[in-house]
Amino acid sequence: MTAGTAATDTRSRLLDTALKLFSEHGVEGTSLQMIADELGVTKAAVYYHFKTKDEITEAVAAPGVQELDQIIEEARALRSRGAQIDHALSGFVELIVRQRSLLSLYNSDPGIQRVINRAFRTPRGEDVKTRMKAVLAGENPSLADAIAVHVVFTGLAMVGGAPEYAGIDDDTLREHLLEAGRRLLGRPRRKRPDNHLPGR
Amino acid sequence: MTAGTAATDTRSRLLDTALKLFSEHGVEGTSLQMIADELGVTKAAVYYHFKTKDEITEAVAAPGVQELDQIIEEARALRSRGAQIDHALSGFVELIVRQRSLLSLYNSDPGIQRVINRAFRTPRGEDVKTRMKAVLAGENPSLADAIAVHVVFTGLAMVGGAPEYAGIDDDTLREHLLEAGRRLLGRPRRKRPDNHLPGR
Repeated sequence: MTAGTAATDTRSRLLDTALKLFSEHGVEGTSLQMIADELGVTKAAVYYHFKTKDEITEAVAAPGVQELDQIIEEARALRSRGAQIDHALSGFVELIVRQRSLLSLYNSDPGIQRVINRAFRTPRGEDVKTRMKAVLAGENPSLADAIAVHVVFTGLAMVGGAPEYAGIDDDTLREHLLEAGRRLLGRPRRKRPDNHLPGR
Repeated sequence: MTAGTAATDTRSRLLDTALKLFSEHGVEGTSLQMIADELGVTKAAVYYHFKTKDEITEAVAAPGVQELDQIIEEARALRSRGAQIDHALSGFVELIVRQRSLLSLYNSDPGIQRVINRAFRTPRGEDVKTRMKAVLAGENPSLADAIAVHVVFTGLAMVGGAPEYAGIDDDTLREHLLEAGRRLLGRPRRKRPDNHLPGR
């Protein structure tokens, strides 16, 4: 990848700042002016990138949804069901770990919930959440499997955004989310990839 | 139990009506007047029982929270860890199945979330959610166990309130929630209590 231009740098700083302010004040309680002030730019500079707060909220949520979409496509291209589940689960967990601030906001702010749920509805037809659950549960799943997958999908995402686990480092959180997901989906325990102590 | 008086009947009809209207219009979008109209009584009759919408919302949420509290106390009185977990899990699942409308509202309405989270803070000190998780995970749980319990607690409750499972009958939902919970908590599979076919 080439280095970002000044404009893409500002755009990306703007989205980071928006997510930070959304987390502190809620989407409802954050104005374009507040984002401009926090960035130290004029409101016109914000308008150059986004016309409305809704556009900003969508742009904050979009990369995570796109990544989820990509993980699903990658998983579907794999041949064995086991490999599909493992890829979808580990990709999902990786995304949860990296997007903890966004998830924490999603779990507590109806403004961002609305926007993310809208973003989940991609051009591919069925929404991303439904397609992810279909990869994990398989074609025509039993009700038991569908429910287990629903518990995994929502439960893992809720843990990722829960304030009581905000202090846990990425590696430890990833390991435990994977373990919980594999247990519930009936996948065998993974071998430890190396000798890292938990918590490091 | 003795038969309810007319006043307690009205109070209970009022709470049922409030929950129904909250589900349709959100807590925010429901007025005392709307509740009175739906019940076919005057606003004064509603005021006789509740002074504010907040009081109604709390009364809608209270029985479920009290019941959860009682399940926890019962579980804690049992001697073996296995029996404690089984009692807490089955009581929690039973409550989820019976309170699906309230859960569905909880999962989608920030107004009721605030009220229920407030109701969770009982006089016993730690809130009911924390105490339930402590019964399921044991004293000084490992981080892995704490996270597995968090996934169970939030995941099962989310399934209970999810619109896609609203049409499933109570027995089937109860069976699958229990199975998912037991799998994740590492409890052995239960013997089927009888020969009911799933889905009946």
